[in-house]
Amino acid sequence: MAERSMIFAAPEFRARTARLQRAMARDGLDALLLTQPADIFYVTGFLTRFWESPARAWFVIVPGSGEPVAVIPAIGADLMGRCWISDIRTWAAPDPRDDGISLLAASLRETLPGTGRIGVAMAAETHLRMPLADFARLRERLAPHRFVDGTKALHSVREIKSEAEIDKIRAACLLADRAFARVPEFVRPGAALGDVFRSFQIALLQEGADWVSYVAGGAGQGGYGDVISPAGPDPIMPGDLVMLDTGAVRDGYFCDFDRNFSIGPASDALRRAHDVLFAATERALVRLRPAMTAAQAHAVMAEAIVQAGAVPLGGRLGHGLGVTLTEWPSFTPLDHTELREGMVLTLEPGLQIAPGKIMVHEENIVLRADGPELLSPRAPATLPEIRL
Amino acid sequence: MAERSMIFAAPEFRARTARLQRAMARDGLDALLLTQPADIFYVTGFLTRFWESPARAWFVIVPGSGEPVAVIPAIGADLMGRCWISDIRTWAAPDPRDDGISLLAASLRETLPGTGRIGVAMAAETHLRMPLADFARLRERLAPHRFVDGTKALHSVREIKSEAEIDKIRAACLLADRAFARVPEFVRPGAALGDVFRSFQIALLQEGADWVSYVAGGAGQGGYGDVISPAGPDPIMPGDLVMLDTGAVRDGYFCDFDRNFSIGPASDALRRAHDVLFAATERALVRLRPAMTAAQAHAVMAEAIVQAGAVPLGGRLGHGLGVTLTEWPSFTPLDHTELREGMVLTLEPGLQIAPGKIMVHEENIVLRADGPELLSPRAPATLPEIRL
Repeated sequence: MAERSMIFAAPEFRARTARLQRAMARDGLDALLLTQPADIFYVTGFLTRFWESPARAWFVIVPGSGEPVAVIPAIGADLMGRCWISDIRTWAAPDPRDDGISLLAASLRETLPGTGRIGVAMAAETHLRMPLADFARLRERLAPHRFVDGTKALHSVREIKSEAEIDKIRAACLLADRAFARVPEFVRPGAALGDVFRSFQIALLQEGADWVSYVAGGAGQGGYGDVISPAGPDPIMPGDLVMLDTGAVRDGYFCDFDRNFSIGPASDALRRAHDVLFAATERALVRLRPAMTAAQAHAVMAEAIVQAGAVPLGGRLGHGLGVTLTEWPSFTPLDHTELREGMVLTLEPGLQIAPGKIMVHEENIVLRADGPELLSPRAPATLPEIRL
Repeated sequence: MAERSMIFAAPEFRARTARLQRAMARDGLDALLLTQPADIFYVTGFLTRFWESPARAWFVIVPGSGEPVAVIPAIGADLMGRCWISDIRTWAAPDPRDDGISLLAASLRETLPGTGRIGVAMAAETHLRMPLADFARLRERLAPHRFVDGTKALHSVREIKSEAEIDKIRAACLLADRAFARVPEFVRPGAALGDVFRSFQIALLQEGADWVSYVAGGAGQGGYGDVISPAGPDPIMPGDLVMLDTGAVRDGYFCDFDRNFSIGPASDALRRAHDVLFAATERALVRLRPAMTAAQAHAVMAEAIVQAGAVPLGGRLGHGLGVTLTEWPSFTPLDHTELREGMVLTLEPGLQIAPGKIMVHEENIVLRADGPELLSPRAPATLPEIRL
């Protein structure tokens, strides 16, 4: 299982660590403490679904130089031992007396100079995956070392994908595209949306997903109400607009795009809504460039929708993508993050068809020097109709 | 979709809230702030896979009396509006200027007396699902109100399952049992473990899982190495011990149990290991009672293994189960949590067959006044053999 649990060969991880350490030096961090699955996978290649259990905390220390150090529950020693790093320290978790905090404090102290600054992700789109009381203990133990926000170092590195990562995301997109092509097999009038969601997940697995971390969708006459609900028992009806959206995972990397379907012949309103969103996406595909901001990307799509006489949705119209279903930045008027070459992003324009009736369209791209390269095969230009 | 998104009728949630508020009064908490998916689902019925996106924080306030208040990103308003609570406050997330913190601070202040104590889960098996920097801002805004550990109130309520919850967990167990019965369809010599994991997830979906949050397993000659690894490309071979373990989800509730299979005729060592684990589980099924401790439950199983002349695994031999794949307590010698009537638990004895070769057996139970009631249909008494 060695090759698969590594996902990438060691040089990929060494390059990531070196980039992180340069960003840490830039930001004045003497060490970086990682607690979140995506960050730990990014640095070590440690890939497991065991994160689903909230019982144990896991830690990886990125020192200012040298290899990362894993401080983890003993149950993970075998799997971490197949990753590229060699310094793996374990404790018998869960331990109500001291759940790895002494071991972590000692390990951090080893890597730190006189009075060090330890970066921890504290800003938007992050959280600390360890008990808050244990973090307070750790902070006390390590004084006068200080914990500071390390989000910038982490995100500025993770947001630029290597070609190896882009290949993985493309593979996830391609398998999802094959599953979307099979939607007419199971989206039919009378089908319960819950069964449609199951069939779609089955199709994704059959087409090569390792697992399906995210499926959402909607169905409704002339549009759906939201895009995050689980399926209900109501059957699909002629005249419904059906949307399926997925974050399928292959080798730890996500796709995140959706497709819309009309059940039976599409109304003019639905066909037009799809045309508008397709054109808004097209405009972003033509215009996006490195050094634009996320807010400018939002404006490109929002203006295309407004110019077509439609009402864009208020939320974000796209976001980063990769090791998690969604990553920074957000295509909103408020996010002035600079778009950079190598970012993998979703273009996700949405509009209001009528009050409470929306349509959302989504594609995945990697931003190249000369503009976007599609990773998801392009949606059909006209709204597909499922024959009755 | 109203019925399904609610999962339970409003009285179930009102009863949970009332129990929480009694525990809060006992623990001197004036309000409880929830940030984790399981806690928010438990109190409101808000069920979505959108938690997979780390972009946004979500908050629910349980005041000392009266209904909970949701303070959530606008994208969730539609779905939360179909839940039983009526006080739903939203902001346009993500907002880099103020990501809901002013709204949350104002909402908390409304519910608090003079100088209040706000409970937040800070202890083992919890984390704060919001950016740490935002929590610091919130704390500053709310002074002199204090944030204190609210884990006990939350866990002492959540750990006792209602009959409605037990029915959901049983349903998850039964569908997983049907999927396990189909293992001989896809576990064969030459099959890659990755494809086995896919087929098993497909079977779980076909048997009624809404989604499959967890699949793990192992395969190896005479035993597997660990129980948390993803699948590798190595084909299954005659003489392998294969284990599949799943946390399949139905209506937001998990099962968590495994099954072992011998590929071809089982060696004496494998058959004997299975017998020992089956007997250790049997002993726990006979002996566990409310008012015993988790450590005593551990001793029951560990001693049965030792008395049979085998070597029990060092980790925990069972744990809580319900709204997440694993819940407290942990069956270890260090966990002195009292077992209570209505707890749903896993019995998970494991042993070392040889160095680096283990076997783990798992069942799910609810603890009744007179002992365990099985929720997972009992594993076969002898190790099943897959015919070559």
